[in-house]
Amino acid sequence: MRAQKKSAPNNERLAEIYRAAAQIILRKGYDATSVNDIANALGMTKAGLYHYINGKKELLFDIMNFGLSELDEEVAEPARAIADPAARLRFAVAAHARLVTRGQGAITILVDEITALTPPQQRKITQRKRAYFDFLRGTLDELKAAGQLQDVDTTAATFGLLGMINWLSRWFRHGGALSEEQAADQLVRIAFHGILRPARLKAVDSSQ
Amino acid sequence: MRAQKKSAPNNERLAEIYRAAAQIILRKGYDATSVNDIANALGMTKAGLYHYINGKKELLFDIMNFGLSELDEEVAEPARAIADPAARLRFAVAAHARLVTRGQGAITILVDEITALTPPQQRKITQRKRAYFDFLRGTLDELKAAGQLQDVDTTAATFGLLGMINWLSRWFRHGGALSEEQAADQLVRIAFHGILRPARLKAVDSSQ
Repeated sequence: MRAQKKSAPNNERLAEIYRAAAQIILRKGYDATSVNDIANALGMTKAGLYHYINGKKELLFDIMNFGLSELDEEVAEPARAIADPAARLRFAVAAHARLVTRGQGAITILVDEITALTPPQQRKITQRKRAYFDFLRGTLDELKAAGQLQDVDTTAATFGLLGMINWLSRWFRHGGALSEEQAADQLVRIAFHGILRPARLKAVDSSQ
Repeated sequence: MRAQKKSAPNNERLAEIYRAAAQIILRKGYDATSVNDIANALGMTKAGLYHYINGKKELLFDIMNFGLSELDEEVAEPARAIADPAARLRFAVAAHARLVTRGQGAITILVDEITALTPPQQRKITQRKRAYFDFLRGTLDELKAAGQLQDVDTTAATFGLLGMINWLSRWFRHGGALSEEQAADQLVRIAFHGILRPARLKAVDSSQ
């Protein structure tokens, strides 16, 4: 089965399985979800599903790696090609937001079910998450060095960005008031401009 | 037992039980957590714990209500007494952030394990969460009407604020680089000012 999975030509089918499994695990919790539940949701037999996966724990690890690879390929790698740090950040926030809205965030959130993994798997996932975090914070550090950042802590600001982006998975609904593009644009605006107009901001600050 | 719980004089003990139970449920998942697990973590017998609770599902409901009551009492109610909407928002963001850091966010996040509740319990919790959301968004709407808000959608901005605040539970650590007060202050700055200096922002905007 391991060989079959590795050579599986149908990556789109695998992506579909990962997204569906992530939704179920998110809804029921990892412990309460059986491989049978996942097969049923996909309209497959358990044996058919084992054609694609190597067991529940391995599946969870694969889903997390899949999500982190999407993040690398669609956000971090293209962003790294953008020299200007402000333009790079704008691209990264919008692309990451679109990734979360596309999959209804199931994979995004699932990345936090990390305690169900073996210690070596946990180290691997933590390392990959850390690399992405460092990429974002590094961009903020560049902006700071260039005098382009507000007076904020770059670690807190990076977590602030990730919080806003990941929270999309809780509230964004396809067919709702905002399209994917509009939601991504709103996050960029809020992250870059903040919510208060500068004039008002000064008035509040000086009243303290 | 129900009567005992209602008349329990020791609210601090109850709060301690809710916070500890929230941590365990968060770590293990609601389904995988037994009343015994919670009793063990508290150094109590199961019978001793039943002195305070009416069963696992009822406990989950009580924890969520406890968290939402804290939010009302420490954030929404005192905030409502502040007439100026910008000052009210500043207070609410900082007070909510401190509430999340104090409890390491376990209760905050647990509020989303809502599907484990009965439908009437779910309606109650959803209603209370909605009321808090409406309070925050109402403050942004006031700022918008007064011409003090950036050009952002108030619903998206409210979720953006909540995302940043709730995400604190994932990264804030007591004894880390930032104190509770500093973390709360950082969130207010990022939410109000955004992360880029206005001059830079204009340059990026006009390059599109």
